[in-house]
Amino acid sequence: MGVLIVGTVTLDTVETPSNRVEDVLGGSGVYAAVAANFFKSSVQLVGVIGADFPRSYTNFLETQGIDLQGLERIANGKSFRWGGRYAENFNVRDTLFTELNVVSDFHPVLPDAYKKAPYLFLANNSPVLQLSIIEQATDPKLIVCDTMDFWINEEREALEALLARVDVLVLNDSEAQLFIGDSNLMRAAQAILRYGPKRVIVKKGEHGAISVTKSSFFSAPAYPLTRVTDPTGAGDSFAGGMMGYIAAVGDTSEATIRSAMIYGTVIASFNIEDFSVNRQKCVQFSEISSRYDELKEAVHF
Amino acid sequence: MGVLIVGTVTLDTVETPSNRVEDVLGGSGVYAAVAANFFKSSVQLVGVIGADFPRSYTNFLETQGIDLQGLERIANGKSFRWGGRYAENFNVRDTLFTELNVVSDFHPVLPDAYKKAPYLFLANNSPVLQLSIIEQATDPKLIVCDTMDFWINEEREALEALLARVDVLVLNDSEAQLFIGDSNLMRAAQAILRYGPKRVIVKKGEHGAISVTKSSFFSAPAYPLTRVTDPTGAGDSFAGGMMGYIAAVGDTSEATIRSAMIYGTVIASFNIEDFSVNRQKCVQFSEISSRYDELKEAVHF
Repeated sequence: MGVLIVGTVTLDTVETPSNRVEDVLGGSGVYAAVAANFFKSSVQLVGVIGADFPRSYTNFLETQGIDLQGLERIANGKSFRWGGRYAENFNVRDTLFTELNVVSDFHPVLPDAYKKAPYLFLANNSPVLQLSIIEQATDPKLIVCDTMDFWINEEREALEALLARVDVLVLNDSEAQLFIGDSNLMRAAQAILRYGPKRVIVKKGEHGAISVTKSSFFSAPAYPLTRVTDPTGAGDSFAGGMMGYIAAVGDTSEATIRSAMIYGTVIASFNIEDFSVNRQKCVQFSEISSRYDELKEAVHF
Repeated sequence: MGVLIVGTVTLDTVETPSNRVEDVLGGSGVYAAVAANFFKSSVQLVGVIGADFPRSYTNFLETQGIDLQGLERIANGKSFRWGGRYAENFNVRDTLFTELNVVSDFHPVLPDAYKKAPYLFLANNSPVLQLSIIEQATDPKLIVCDTMDFWINEEREALEALLARVDVLVLNDSEAQLFIGDSNLMRAAQAILRYGPKRVIVKKGEHGAISVTKSSFFSAPAYPLTRVTDPTGAGDSFAGGMMGYIAAVGDTSEATIRSAMIYGTVIASFNIEDFSVNRQKCVQFSEISSRYDELKEAVHF
């Protein structure tokens, strides 16, 4: 079944202690779509690019089988550009620049073929825009959204309205703590459930992720990577991989979501091994399965 | 079988955002011994106290069945006193004072009955002292030691000599990163193995713990606590609980050590729920088993 992904499609400049890349393919929508696409579900991407966006990038996404009907190209616009720099330990990231360009005036209208998508992933974005997508969807089976500190601080009311409409909220640990104002992550996650989502998934970077519902708790390990090149997009790869697996299985049971989180973890681990989606381009599904099995063994007792 | 624990026995003053206790029973040796003691192994404690150490505290340890033959009371000495203050999120701890007193001149001599102990836990201490214990032990089956940044910075040579003699090193994530000078935890843990230990166990606080050997990787989840009163002693409760379980089972297989780490995690979770060893005093083994089962369910996929 199909996954609808709404997110950014960007040109990224990334500096790490040992390397630098410029205007590479990036954005939450791209990372999530490429990850979801590993599961042979139909993946539909909604986003916006400018006239300057390289054809080679959109060609790549299309040859992967990602549906770009919902990717709008603004003839006289410039693409979203983001620049970031990582410090030595990759836990601290400085944003060097954010040029919203075409994104600042984007009001997505779903193509008819997208409206019936059963699985929706609304990557980090304005909660107003995220809500407008939900209102266009006719048969959602699972709505998952991400958010960030900016919206928590600046668009609290709209974010709360959004949370009343989604099934799963995915966010970072610091964001969960900020939203509730409680440094205890478990309490913060439980408190978020009261805003509406049936499940809160908290991403903890190198410490894995947790999933909390009223009646369940799941602790997903991180994959023990020794080679970190660029963490950009890891969170969106995680969520996208999760959505791709859920759509492929076609149910939203606790067991499916747990496996989906592990697949998301594995795809994020590959993502981190190179810039942009370079590593994903050459990952075989057997490699994904193999890391999945490694993680199963790593938590067994 | 028996667990020999060498650590501090202290009077602690702890301040948290909502509470303060003074001169309560504490110390790495106490936390580890009380934790190990849940498994009905014989627990032998080596440490030193002053004339001022309350009889009620030693009586408590004795009535628990902990062997205090190795606990030296210095007639004209003062006990080790430590004071610490936790900030709002419990992740930052300021040491308010450290009065070593009788500990500064302590050169432990094992009672004959202790020398044959098969399972040794050498809590954080000078590596020279830790080595002197190993040299007195006649039949060790498993030697586990802890350390901290102070020894890594100030006694590197002795610490390296110690590592060549121990089976397992237990330390915090920041300490592992400091020892190797690598912020990637997995690489740091792997690099520590080259100094001698067959296994490195890295404690990550609220993010659980990992165990790394040349051929295995285990990720232990944290117990999802919502009630945190005082984290003091959590690391020693973890290690002590682990040792108690290993001694009770009587082997050091991968499977035993994984279960032992989970039992250690559970006992540490109780430890955190109250000051000193107050929570442990009233924990039933059925409660420990119940949290063990919860963690099994929490990582299952």
